[in-house]
Amino acid sequence: MLHGYHGKILHVDLTAGALTVEEPGEAIYRKYLGGTGLGAYYLFKHTPPHADPLGPENTLSLITGPVAGAAIPGQSRVGAIAVSPLTGVVGEASGGGFWAAELKNTGFDGIVIRGQAARPVYLWVHDGQAELRDAASLWGKFAAEVEDAIRGELSDPRIHVLQCGPAAEAGVRFGALINNANRANGRSGMGTVMASKRLKAIAVRGSLRPHFADPKALSALARWGAQHLAESSVSGMHDFGTANVLLPQNLVGGLPTRNWSSGVFEGAGLISGPYMAETIRPATDTCFACVVACKPVTEVTEGPFSVERRYGGPEYETLATLGSYCGVSDVKAVARANQLCNMYGMDTISCGATVAWAMDCYEHGLITREQTGGIDLRFGNAEAMVRIVELIGVREGFGAVLGEGSARAAQALGVGQELVAAIKGRELPAHMPQVKRSLALMYAVNPGGADHTVSEHDPDYAGFPERMAELDLLDPQPANALNAEKVRYALYTQRLVSAVDSASLCWFVFGGAWQLYGPSQFVEAIAAATGWNVSLWELMKVGERRINLMRAFNARDGVGAEADVLPAKLLKPLVGGPSDGVAVPLEEFEAARATYYRMAGWDERGHPTRAKLEELALGWVADELGG
Amino acid sequence: MLHGYHGKILHVDLTAGALTVEEPGEAIYRKYLGGTGLGAYYLFKHTPPHADPLGPENTLSLITGPVAGAAIPGQSRVGAIAVSPLTGVVGEASGGGFWAAELKNTGFDGIVIRGQAARPVYLWVHDGQAELRDAASLWGKFAAEVEDAIRGELSDPRIHVLQCGPAAEAGVRFGALINNANRANGRSGMGTVMASKRLKAIAVRGSLRPHFADPKALSALARWGAQHLAESSVSGMHDFGTANVLLPQNLVGGLPTRNWSSGVFEGAGLISGPYMAETIRPATDTCFACVVACKPVTEVTEGPFSVERRYGGPEYETLATLGSYCGVSDVKAVARANQLCNMYGMDTISCGATVAWAMDCYEHGLITREQTGGIDLRFGNAEAMVRIVELIGVREGFGAVLGEGSARAAQALGVGQELVAAIKGRELPAHMPQVKRSLALMYAVNPGGADHTVSEHDPDYAGFPERMAELDLLDPQPANALNAEKVRYALYTQRLVSAVDSASLCWFVFGGAWQLYGPSQFVEAIAAATGWNVSLWELMKVGERRINLMRAFNARDGVGAEADVLPAKLLKPLVGGPSDGVAVPLEEFEAARATYYRMAGWDERGHPTRAKLEELALGWVADELGG
Repeated sequence: MLHGYHGKILHVDLTAGALTVEEPGEAIYRKYLGGTGLGAYYLFKHTPPHADPLGPENTLSLITGPVAGAAIPGQSRVGAIAVSPLTGVVGEASGGGFWAAELKNTGFDGIVIRGQAARPVYLWVHDGQAELRDAASLWGKFAAEVEDAIRGELSDPRIHVLQCGPAAEAGVRFGALINNANRANGRSGMGTVMASKRLKAIAVRGSLRPHFADPKALSALARWGAQHLAESSVSGMHDFGTANVLLPQNLVGGLPTRNWSSGVFEGAGLISGPYMAETIRPATDTCFACVVACKPVTEVTEGPFSVERRYGGPEYETLATLGSYCGVSDVKAVARANQLCNMYGMDTISCGATVAWAMDCYEHGLITREQTGGIDLRFGNAEAMVRIVELIGVREGFGAVLGEGSARAAQALGVGQELVAAIKGRELPAHMPQVKRSLALMYAVNPGGADHTVSEHDPDYAGFPERMAELDLLDPQPANALNAEKVRYALYTQRLVSAVDSASLCWFVFGGAWQLYGPSQFVEAIAAATGWNVSLWELMKVGERRINLMRAFNARDGVGAEADVLPAKLLKPLVGGPSDGVAVPLEEFEAARATYYRMAGWDERGHPTRAKLEELALGWVADELGG
Repeated sequence: MLHGYHGKILHVDLTAGALTVEEPGEAIYRKYLGGTGLGAYYLFKHTPPHADPLGPENTLSLITGPVAGAAIPGQSRVGAIAVSPLTGVVGEASGGGFWAAELKNTGFDGIVIRGQAARPVYLWVHDGQAELRDAASLWGKFAAEVEDAIRGELSDPRIHVLQCGPAAEAGVRFGALINNANRANGRSGMGTVMASKRLKAIAVRGSLRPHFADPKALSALARWGAQHLAESSVSGMHDFGTANVLLPQNLVGGLPTRNWSSGVFEGAGLISGPYMAETIRPATDTCFACVVACKPVTEVTEGPFSVERRYGGPEYETLATLGSYCGVSDVKAVARANQLCNMYGMDTISCGATVAWAMDCYEHGLITREQTGGIDLRFGNAEAMVRIVELIGVREGFGAVLGEGSARAAQALGVGQELVAAIKGRELPAHMPQVKRSLALMYAVNPGGADHTVSEHDPDYAGFPERMAELDLLDPQPANALNAEKVRYALYTQRLVSAVDSASLCWFVFGGAWQLYGPSQFVEAIAAATGWNVSLWELMKVGERRINLMRAFNARDGVGAEADVLPAKLLKPLVGGPSDGVAVPLEEFEAARATYYRMAGWDERGHPTRAKLEELALGWVADELGG
């Protein structure tokens, strides 16, 4: 008997309207674990080469992990993976909340969605049952409305709903999946994929609790977490949410400002965690069974920017992208824009970064007020920022252009390509490779484009040598150079984080240097849930397998090294503050990338070699790639 | 404070007669652990390129591990490593008994020996002290005599002595290091290296017990071992010693017979474990604190072949090499030859295999009775076998030729090169790649030449899927084909066994499929001894580091792929029994080797790439190699 899993994956063919249940068997679960690891397996298996991201042939997987549903922090996450309409390559995003734990209670470990419905539908999954229901009345509605409507229709206020929003329906390429009206699988347009299939939402509710092999061990680990939270590095997140990192980033010149022209923002204090707590954040929220409780709840009842509690509040990334990226220091405006992103179902990072790009163009005279429809897109214009975000949500006017994302918008308008801060078409998140040098490499080589949640960031290393030693990272790191030791550090921590993603666990909680639980406790959690005598070696290999599957997926479409490049923005010296004059040295980056490819077992095209795939028991993938 | 180590390595410069103490520091210990892992580090660091194995520039390390001295099975082993006079490349051998645990009690973790003494000396190490003493009177003496003499001279009967023998002194290239008069670091001529330095013996005695981080955890693991011995696969070794495997090997056609011409031996029953127990094995012996107690004690008081208890008894390898390899089914003759090897200090594998090669040549008329000095070297001639072994020990007559090992002897005589069963000049041990196909690969690529203790053997896999799953080996193995999955299996288990060697633990006890303790318990033992939160990932990387250091050492001398080849013998079909007609398919082997190189991160020359070395934090080695 499987522990930690129900052993069932729900397959949804929207073209045929057919629901089938697959039982993959223990070996598949152990090899891929779940989340976007198992999702990458389905993506490669079921999606033909050169698939249209918005066509019925795209495969969207939403998969939980073996610990999901246990009363322990960091487990209620769902990994979404599909071909991205934003980047054209593999796209994936992780989301928290309560939806994942509730999906687990329905008796399914995950859902794999293909095809395209003729009319809008939603999927209702409950206690081993699933059905497709009419969603005509939900189309075009905001997140909270949809949630309420489904709960009303099914007469169960405890149903959890994951959905795409009006932006995705309208074709905005960075549509997010929203659950609880305030949690997002944000990046890469996973919401847009779901909308393209005319699947509005997935409602889940169940009482089929998963069986864990060693519930006592899980409880002990949960207890340990609660007892050690205060002394851990995530305690700041407990106090102020992810916003807690904003001022420290600014202090070292690592807060992207005015479309990555500077690493310091004079208005940082006004969009910081402490300031939010004093002004617009009356409460905090949590994911299922988590003690970290890092989610902000914001409320603004007066003034031009109203914010409802239900739509949550801006994370650090959002405070940066809709704040400092745009030169906006009005935290209420940022919170309002954040709410709009949740209402319309949009990724706040790509949205904010695209607006920042447009502002940069506007300041350079590359985009005119005529083009923006009269909006004065200057850096720092809070009102304009909020206005353009709403226009993107409805995909109207200049918002229709920006809804394509910064890279496509630059191409469409024929201007500002040198100002685009994106890799593989995915906008840069708010951690700067100029001051965390390993991120230059990780942003570039990540199969899905720039991502700050794929490896440990540089400065985290020094403070936690014990946890890094478990990864065989024993040598001191150079502070700000991409030498071979730093590449090794990036490679190993990337595999660990990839394993955490395969287990669909929260990276703030599990598996790293500064997280609540270290690598060995990550292993413990998986072992306690599944009963498998898993090792860190095995989990690192699971993580490596996921990365290689995604790279192989891209390789099958001919995408490799030529896409692992840095935007011009990162090569241009920053202005002001501690990072004044700092740029990513191109030669150092290129040497590191070559070293990384070799260490990773990829060829000069950046494609996994047959030997590497075979070493990871992915011979079937090598066969599909040929050569 | 270090746990599991004293933190001190004794460096002996015999040319200068200088003894110095190095404190390598925690990072070095954690990266290389000990045994031949740490020894490989010293070998690479201190030995110049193209060093004469018998010159003062060769570096001989004798290093214990972090668990040595604890009251737990499998820890009292010392790893010896140096350039081999038999092969000209890196040579290493592990030895058990009591010496390693006693060395640990002297306050040193290991001894690194360089230079060459003007006159014979021995090293006396006791409680943090060390001195070189005159050994003129010990030169030329047999193992037991030397042991008694040193104990007498130092007035301590509990001293443990590790020594080279008269064979090594005389220049036999496969001289062993013998301790307790019956335990050997057998292979690769480590005794010959010690003799070339005019260091006769190392006597150890101490009361400086190492401090372990978690003695209770070690005790619990020891208790678990005692409780689970009977149901484990090593219980047969407890009952009959390693000889226990002889009949099963014969049953599947895997007992090398008449110089590898057949896999079945009609006299197998007469050299089997049960037969030994009934006839010449009155008792069994153990290593320090081990419950497996696999060492045979043999005694023969009548007839032509006398055997004393003190010299122990033949292991499986010896029963094969001096028995079935030579067609000899007289177990008393084999036991006598085994005693001669221990008295003279010779590797029973290379010795027996070289005799078998000579017999094969003799049967083919390539070596004449005139050349052998009248000895009728027919297969099956027990008396001739014993006689020639003694002649090798004194390096006289035809024994002087065979003391060069089979490969050099064939070259010197200009005959029988196609009959040599050796790789890199090291004679094949008694596990047949024809029926355990992964060994074809492992024998070939092992840096030190053919070795049966560097990876799990094929048939062991199926019975222990749980322990293999910890290594991420989840897929069923093809029974007898060297496909990519089998290469992967060999690669991963090789790293594990290499880690066990780095920890200087016994491979019968720790770290594998059929061993007493599985991989996770190996991790537990290291963690309990050191207090480090080590992971299987980290230990696998330590193991990989050791392999790559040794390959890099060879590469620096220009040795690589051209030496990773199979002897003609393995490509010729066997005759008789279940393996009748079976040969190692050359194409399959060559494809597997190419796959292995790629998986291992080695180039087409079989040299570790710079990227692989850097990935293993061996950038300093890459710098030495250049390129």
